[in-house]
Amino acid sequence: MTTDTPVQAPIYNRVALIGLGLIASSMYWAIKRGGLANEVTGYARSTETRETAREIGLCDRVCDTAIEACEDADLVVLCVPVGAMESVAREIAPALKKGATVTDVGSVKKSVIEAVGPHIPDGVHFVPGHPLAGTEHSGPRSGFAELFDNRWCLLVPVEGSDPAEVARLRALWEGMGSNVEEMEADHHDLVLAVTSHAPHLIAYTMVGVADDLRRVTDSEVIKYSAAGFRDFTRIAASDPTMWRDVFLTNKEATLEILGRFTEELFALQRAIRTGDGEHLQDYFTRTRAIRRGIIEAGQDTDAPDFGRIKKDAT
Amino acid sequence: MTTDTPVQAPIYNRVALIGLGLIASSMYWAIKRGGLANEVTGYARSTETRETAREIGLCDRVCDTAIEACEDADLVVLCVPVGAMESVAREIAPALKKGATVTDVGSVKKSVIEAVGPHIPDGVHFVPGHPLAGTEHSGPRSGFAELFDNRWCLLVPVEGSDPAEVARLRALWEGMGSNVEEMEADHHDLVLAVTSHAPHLIAYTMVGVADDLRRVTDSEVIKYSAAGFRDFTRIAASDPTMWRDVFLTNKEATLEILGRFTEELFALQRAIRTGDGEHLQDYFTRTRAIRRGIIEAGQDTDAPDFGRIKKDAT
Repeated sequence: MTTDTPVQAPIYNRVALIGLGLIASSMYWAIKRGGLANEVTGYARSTETRETAREIGLCDRVCDTAIEACEDADLVVLCVPVGAMESVAREIAPALKKGATVTDVGSVKKSVIEAVGPHIPDGVHFVPGHPLAGTEHSGPRSGFAELFDNRWCLLVPVEGSDPAEVARLRALWEGMGSNVEEMEADHHDLVLAVTSHAPHLIAYTMVGVADDLRRVTDSEVIKYSAAGFRDFTRIAASDPTMWRDVFLTNKEATLEILGRFTEELFALQRAIRTGDGEHLQDYFTRTRAIRRGIIEAGQDTDAPDFGRIKKDAT
Repeated sequence: MTTDTPVQAPIYNRVALIGLGLIASSMYWAIKRGGLANEVTGYARSTETRETAREIGLCDRVCDTAIEACEDADLVVLCVPVGAMESVAREIAPALKKGATVTDVGSVKKSVIEAVGPHIPDGVHFVPGHPLAGTEHSGPRSGFAELFDNRWCLLVPVEGSDPAEVARLRALWEGMGSNVEEMEADHHDLVLAVTSHAPHLIAYTMVGVADDLRRVTDSEVIKYSAAGFRDFTRIAASDPTMWRDVFLTNKEATLEILGRFTEELFALQRAIRTGDGEHLQDYFTRTRAIRRGIIEAGQDTDAPDFGRIKKDAT
């Protein structure tokens, strides 16, 4: 036994990961790192993904059907795009054992609860979740054990969720490195519209605009991207299917925030047009303070440019 | 003589840095690193900044007036916000020696040329410039020698710029680590509106919206910022005075790009409202390719999340 071996007992005997993208693959490596389950099964719809998973040793056992992966699982984690949750829930429902827990990692909670909830059999627990972690990469090869370290995971228990099973799922996420909080579904969807969904749509839009401009060639936009634009392109490189589903299922909150955004943007455009420097400077001074708060909350680095620049040690 | 000592001769005998913020302080350390000048003088309007510069050894000589700093300088670099360029140019004009070159580091070129050009005395060269480098930090303590390494610096020679002096300034920037290109002022201002000015205003706006929302408390927005929002806050933490001046002086190009942006954003909002998933997915797939181009162009890292996440070496 090395000093790295975790001393805690596994939290679940068998965990099934349905869908093997960035989040599921990171969960697998984090579960192994922490010794949090005795066996992890995995399933992905695409043959190619299953083959990749087998090749890189992702999951103790990769199954050819979702049913097989869920058999005798104590925890089933739905790691598919939000728009695919309902069909997957319907498919696996007959295979769920009594006393098992179903959770998910979807970025939207209200619509997932509406889609999955009705398919959960009596005697099976349903505890929706959402790890606020990710990168711009996707697919089975993109996962790594540290993805959830010091990141938040929001659990959104539904009516009748067994507190003991919520606590058990919390222990799993904590074991994977996350800080866990519980939240209501509606509130979750609004908070995420502000912190994630609207910023992603805005980044996608700005990158699309740059791509459209024929007078400023693509190569120039790319060449001189370090001036600010490249930060948008990272966000706008995230998985297209996942994000399509997020916007379609968190429609109301996202559109509300985007409405607010457009209103503010028009006010700033007016200030530029009329030369109202005071308004601009006041606005920019206020936003600077928020950055400070994020760094103090330990949610980002204070290193200039995200630490991209490597200073000499001299 | 260590192996680190540069072998090239200094490019200028005396360089004067007017304004001692992030760019000027980085220039000082980069000039020293490369042995690119025999003496660098510095001046800042604020007593506090001058005191800080003396304390940290920023500049070989910190002067109490801009006139004094410019005396006998072969190169004078205007490192003040774009809106302050004209008054500084007027102030130093009498102190400029024949044959000297004046350059600047402003983010907007057309308005700086209009503001500074008329004050340049006969026999003094004027070669506007713009290093596309920066961080969200500002002030004399924020500079470091590596800021310009592998970043672009755009030179925007005006009518009558002496090619030999343009080449000399190019050599200085290359000595500081930059790749240098020449560009027309109007084209520069449009390219920067796309790659920098519009993205900054958009980031400022999104952060302002989040700050305004009272139902989603500040602490929640900050706490859960890693979901995408925090990338916007870094950009929106940039120097408020500098950015006020950028928008006021590159008004036309910035408003044009923002108009395009709003148009696209409305189209995507409509797609969300009407549930047009195909439109969204096509759009998001297209923007992903641009990210790839930026990484291939060596202008950003492919490490997930800008390399923020430190993977174990195990």
